[in-house]
Amino acid sequence: MSIREVLPELEKILGDRLSLSKSDLANHGRNETHFAPASPDAVVYPETTGEVSQIVKVCAARGCPVTGWGAGTSLEGHALAVKGGVVVDFQHMNKVLRISPEDMDVTVQPGITREDLNRELRSTGLFFPVDPGANASLGGMAATRASGTTAVRYGTMRENVLGLQVVLADGRVIRTGTRARKSSAGYDLTGLFVGAEGTLGLLTELTLRLQGQPEAISAAICAFDDIGPAVQTVIQTIQMGIPMARIEFVDATTAAAFNSYAGADMPETPHLMVEFHGSDAGVAEQAESFGTIVTEMGGQGFRWSARTEDRTALWTMRHNAFYACLSLRPGASALVTDMCVPISRLADAVEETRADIARASIPGPILGHVGDGNFHAILLVEPNNIAEMEEARALAHRMVGRALRMGGTVTGEHGIGMGKLDYMEDEHGQAWDVMGEIKRTLDPGDLMNPGKLVRQP
Amino acid sequence: MSIREVLPELEKILGDRLSLSKSDLANHGRNETHFAPASPDAVVYPETTGEVSQIVKVCAARGCPVTGWGAGTSLEGHALAVKGGVVVDFQHMNKVLRISPEDMDVTVQPGITREDLNRELRSTGLFFPVDPGANASLGGMAATRASGTTAVRYGTMRENVLGLQVVLADGRVIRTGTRARKSSAGYDLTGLFVGAEGTLGLLTELTLRLQGQPEAISAAICAFDDIGPAVQTVIQTIQMGIPMARIEFVDATTAAAFNSYAGADMPETPHLMVEFHGSDAGVAEQAESFGTIVTEMGGQGFRWSARTEDRTALWTMRHNAFYACLSLRPGASALVTDMCVPISRLADAVEETRADIARASIPGPILGHVGDGNFHAILLVEPNNIAEMEEARALAHRMVGRALRMGGTVTGEHGIGMGKLDYMEDEHGQAWDVMGEIKRTLDPGDLMNPGKLVRQP
Repeated sequence: MSIREVLPELEKILGDRLSLSKSDLANHGRNETHFAPASPDAVVYPETTGEVSQIVKVCAARGCPVTGWGAGTSLEGHALAVKGGVVVDFQHMNKVLRISPEDMDVTVQPGITREDLNRELRSTGLFFPVDPGANASLGGMAATRASGTTAVRYGTMRENVLGLQVVLADGRVIRTGTRARKSSAGYDLTGLFVGAEGTLGLLTELTLRLQGQPEAISAAICAFDDIGPAVQTVIQTIQMGIPMARIEFVDATTAAAFNSYAGADMPETPHLMVEFHGSDAGVAEQAESFGTIVTEMGGQGFRWSARTEDRTALWTMRHNAFYACLSLRPGASALVTDMCVPISRLADAVEETRADIARASIPGPILGHVGDGNFHAILLVEPNNIAEMEEARALAHRMVGRALRMGGTVTGEHGIGMGKLDYMEDEHGQAWDVMGEIKRTLDPGDLMNPGKLVRQP
Repeated sequence: MSIREVLPELEKILGDRLSLSKSDLANHGRNETHFAPASPDAVVYPETTGEVSQIVKVCAARGCPVTGWGAGTSLEGHALAVKGGVVVDFQHMNKVLRISPEDMDVTVQPGITREDLNRELRSTGLFFPVDPGANASLGGMAATRASGTTAVRYGTMRENVLGLQVVLADGRVIRTGTRARKSSAGYDLTGLFVGAEGTLGLLTELTLRLQGQPEAISAAICAFDDIGPAVQTVIQTIQMGIPMARIEFVDATTAAAFNSYAGADMPETPHLMVEFHGSDAGVAEQAESFGTIVTEMGGQGFRWSARTEDRTALWTMRHNAFYACLSLRPGASALVTDMCVPISRLADAVEETRADIARASIPGPILGHVGDGNFHAILLVEPNNIAEMEEARALAHRMVGRALRMGGTVTGEHGIGMGKLDYMEDEHGQAWDVMGEIKRTLDPGDLMNPGKLVRQP
């Protein structure tokens, strides 16, 4: 590829929305975690699907890589242009195109963030439930098949994207899905592009399923002496069919981080943070059933709050957990792991991981969306300390092995990006080859976010 | 292809589980609706995934088509071997391989039927919720992305298949998905094979999500003077966030069919049949809220029943609706339509369809899973009456156009099979080409259920 040949053509399309400024290139070469920066050769800011299609056509003709960029909040370096080329930043494509309150769905452009979308929805009594914590863009959330605290109730992006508009690797624009709630009309292309991490095309419109604001919401936090009873509480709650909207685990180290970073006043022991959505009577019943389990398991300090400000404070603290944990070691870089296992193995998985980290020299708070069997360790390393980085990688490597041995996945919600490529064969075996065959069919030039997801040539 | 070359090799693998008997070929050439019979050249009854892989390899080497066969309950002729070749009947591969009550999942072979699976699950307190009415095989349900009465609460096969074992067109055996509840590890191959109608490979194992038997179940049926208020009741119930487990619409003609076929004593007007699952208090609250809406909408004869025998009678009647409607015109063949539209368009869709059928000379009861915006007309024609068949096709054609115009899909749950191939381009545009590209990549010889789903050469 010759970027020099591409630039004049991109400039014709985009004018000053083609950027070569050093700071712009550097900003689009960074990531939230420990991966080495990788700046693109150019950044473009399209305003329409037509422009995105033109950009892709120009790049395809010259063999220039194209990588999408949403809010840059990925934890696995998905949007790093590791082969150079053009980064397509969707920040100008951030509109709500249509809201249908009666159908409880919405069509948006990919650059809108989760918080902006929910702000625009507020007056309708509806909300978009998928909540990965970070204020990610919806395009990025779809591309990485994001989930987060509410997946236990409302599902992940897989369940909440009804349809897409996609610019393919040759610039063709297709629509997948319909506005019907279900369909049996052929291959589930929507599902294929959700989670494809931009390697099969760029998402330019998303139709999303919405939820009604619940009549009542109640949240609580409770402390446990140990990990075991906390996880057992989760398992029993699931098995009793109590419909949690969120159920989050944080370990003692994370509780300590909340105390120092967010001024919380928590015992420095494992906690569960939980929320129920429903009718007044339903939420009260669920809270009571859950409270009984907590008490049986020896949980303490348990109290409900239906007050909005208390809940906001609770979930803001949880959402900032990543930064709270980072603050445990000023200047540290984070290697964030993302195991997801069958619920029956969750207690083993968390306890083995905890014990493994306890033997290491680096701190590694554990927290996660335990209702899905999904949890993270945030391994805090000095950025230039090679020995520490090796130790973190070895811990992460053992966690991946543990997840697979237990019938789980190497990434519950963060995606592959730069961090999990080496484990795709272990998880998928020959099915990974099938992913490669699909990639080569839809992107024969290997130009859409190259270096990611499939076996590398 | 030369079937003569394939047969001796298949016999080596299968012995007397290779059948060429006329009755067997005829039985596997039939379908439940109006499509012309199409017998295969041979039927095989494998007992293991290894045998399926060997069968496919033998057929691939000789260019012989391979079509899977579950319970034969498809309404769109999916399993008709329209290009001849070998039909793989999975009736011997009908075991439950693993139940994990703690994880609420199960792994089964594709030939097990829905009712057999739920019988085996009964002692665990769990059940598999997807319920298309017919006692279909799980392999067939996955292949056609089936849904049915409970999708409004529990989702379709898309949401309930966690993972698959698949024999690909070249005989390779892959596994997709894991036993974790969610994953971001690459392309959603599980989702790609679910709904692929056997055109990309044969499903040989399925891992399915289970649900806990609800503490309380309550069902009811109520009559309306007209379609409008019945559909408005559905819309309001959805918008109030009342969690229905089922909400089914039947029109006046279907009510008449129930009276004559099942000895029901219903007013011959539109009805809703509804069911709630939850705690005792939750179900009572939901029933009360729903009752208020029904009363406001002028619904009548409304009463709840939590008695198992009443509910069983109600849903048995609903499940036999297809046969009840067939009995309205003895000797008739059915052309069954399958529109699914956004909820906001449901009343228009049903009423326009009703009016269109009223102008026709053939009967066409309407019923459906209205909580998803999905409904069917069962158009009853004399099998050899060409004028009637043309009239039915014209009605069905207008319904498809109506579904697409309203932002919906040409098939909510029955699939494409022989009946919807001509509408794939209308629904998907260039995205249909992408389906063809995927098909050619994974099945370059066009041997897996050829003649279906993608644009035909």
